[in-house]
Amino acid sequence: MSTNAYYGPEAHGPYELIGIGQLALEDGGTIPDCRLAVATHGTLNAARDNAILVPTWYSGTSKIIEQVYIGAGRALDPARYFIVVVNQIGNGLSTSPHNSSGALAGPGFPKVRIGDDVRAQHRLLTEKFGLTRLALVVGGSMGAQQTYEWAVRHPDFVKRAAAIAGTAKNTEHDFLFAETLLEAITTDPGFRDGRYDSPAEVAAGLKRHAKLWTVMGWSTDFFREGRHKALGFDAMASFVDTFMTGYFAPMDPNDLIAMAWKWQRGDVSRHAGGDLAAALGRIKARTYVMPISHDMFFPPRDCEAEQRLIPGSEFRPLASIDGHLGLFGTDPQMLAQLDMHLLELLARPVE
Amino acid sequence: MSTNAYYGPEAHGPYELIGIGQLALEDGGTIPDCRLAVATHGTLNAARDNAILVPTWYSGTSKIIEQVYIGAGRALDPARYFIVVVNQIGNGLSTSPHNSSGALAGPGFPKVRIGDDVRAQHRLLTEKFGLTRLALVVGGSMGAQQTYEWAVRHPDFVKRAAAIAGTAKNTEHDFLFAETLLEAITTDPGFRDGRYDSPAEVAAGLKRHAKLWTVMGWSTDFFREGRHKALGFDAMASFVDTFMTGYFAPMDPNDLIAMAWKWQRGDVSRHAGGDLAAALGRIKARTYVMPISHDMFFPPRDCEAEQRLIPGSEFRPLASIDGHLGLFGTDPQMLAQLDMHLLELLARPVE
Repeated sequence: MSTNAYYGPEAHGPYELIGIGQLALEDGGTIPDCRLAVATHGTLNAARDNAILVPTWYSGTSKIIEQVYIGAGRALDPARYFIVVVNQIGNGLSTSPHNSSGALAGPGFPKVRIGDDVRAQHRLLTEKFGLTRLALVVGGSMGAQQTYEWAVRHPDFVKRAAAIAGTAKNTEHDFLFAETLLEAITTDPGFRDGRYDSPAEVAAGLKRHAKLWTVMGWSTDFFREGRHKALGFDAMASFVDTFMTGYFAPMDPNDLIAMAWKWQRGDVSRHAGGDLAAALGRIKARTYVMPISHDMFFPPRDCEAEQRLIPGSEFRPLASIDGHLGLFGTDPQMLAQLDMHLLELLARPVE
Repeated sequence: MSTNAYYGPEAHGPYELIGIGQLALEDGGTIPDCRLAVATHGTLNAARDNAILVPTWYSGTSKIIEQVYIGAGRALDPARYFIVVVNQIGNGLSTSPHNSSGALAGPGFPKVRIGDDVRAQHRLLTEKFGLTRLALVVGGSMGAQQTYEWAVRHPDFVKRAAAIAGTAKNTEHDFLFAETLLEAITTDPGFRDGRYDSPAEVAAGLKRHAKLWTVMGWSTDFFREGRHKALGFDAMASFVDTFMTGYFAPMDPNDLIAMAWKWQRGDVSRHAGGDLAAALGRIKARTYVMPISHDMFFPPRDCEAEQRLIPGSEFRPLASIDGHLGLFGTDPQMLAQLDMHLLELLARPVE
């Protein structure tokens, strides 16, 4: 176990660390004492039917979800809903390589899949909060992967689902992109097979990783329109060095790698022997599929192909030249579109 | 000077090495004895008005231009035109880091800009072939950069221009993508600041470079539609290992770096004090701007913004899910579209 001041309540709180016990993992191995970092907003009503689950994306925590998506007058309004934001395993707040000890510490951390997160979250919601249904599961990127996994695995539990900028079955193309991210880190000599003493020793690899995110995460249009300058950076170099590298630099490399490995293998078709149509056909939730127009690695057409396999679902693309990282909340107009769709989805009657 | 069997007439011939003398470079330094590898097809007519120039792209040589774009019944038909394919400086056939000696060898090779290539080519065409006009300059990617440079620098010489999948002024976004390619190579410990003994010592870096090209060079749609499988590879892994890595593995890292540095800085606005509109406004050539629909780093909108600044030009996008590397000729339908546009352009009267 190593300490890393970045992952704490000062930067990411408030949240509660909730133990859900021993978690046996799909790919083998066990997390003996799995703890989920959970942030809640609002109050569960008497009927226990106003709960919304928001899982997190790669490198993200409950904090950015709160800052960008939750608030009075928003679709995710704590005055109306009991909103549970669960940090994914490996993200640095929940049980993760860097905060584990013994055999699980650092590079010894076992492989965790999207399905493991969803089983852990299901245990949390049922045992800790006594829930039997979710009014909505909504997430972006790896959060969308978890959203799809929830809807396929627990069709009666999930009443509505909104998958933003992500897929139910990761594409080969996206798998390779994630591999370039992984390799940017692991090829840094300072990484030392995961046995570095601090992220600072892997600074060069983390910076290359940040550059790849800059290239693929936004869009060519974003930079042509000078959106990075509108965010306060006078040039690409300062945008990369200050914003993007500054964002990733304090993060734990083994944590990022645990998440990227999981991201690469998101695939609900595992529940139907590899048959994606059969797996998505199980979904009973009212589902909105919401890619971002300029997303370079989850382009609308990939998402639409999946949407057509989900009974009663709707295709609701979000227009933004901010691309995938529009998830960061950089484009207020995209957030307005998202809220409009979510408000409509939440107003739909369900069983 | 190092030997590298990949760069020779066996793989890339026939071509002629033509000395154009001493070339003073825009960024300082000189190539004392600059030699261009030149492949010609067809015959110059008596009026000397049927010459077509085709410059090459990053990593490409005159061979792929011949194989994919030139032939009887094609727009570039040797029966009608005198087609001159000039390998760019640094591409391994023309004067390049790996085939230079003394102070210019390997990492000592001076920085070469697109403008240097065009000045070298102008000398070749005027002094060696006695040309005073070109019926067409056509090129893809870095070939498009050279095409724009030609049209701006020599507006009366270039009668028609066709810029495929490239820009007149490189974008900040594309600059960063090229930087990730460069760093994939230079961070390989085997690169040793350019003093490796053979490309094999930089195999890991060249493979990462190939992976980045795989991610950005094709498109998500390309892989979703299984186009890589249609090309004969059963999975992404074999496509990356055999096709993409196999393509780049024998190439000289310093040569690739010389080209990437040049590519990053392509910018015709240098001729007008940074005013792109003024520079493009000088073009007298009948110009077709031809981005590829699914190109991830020279997207149609970037190219269209430039097209609007070129007097009398036309926007002629090519539809192909093969993305930027459709330039390799993998999509026959895209080549058919290209030929149709080029035939139309060549049929247009010029002064």
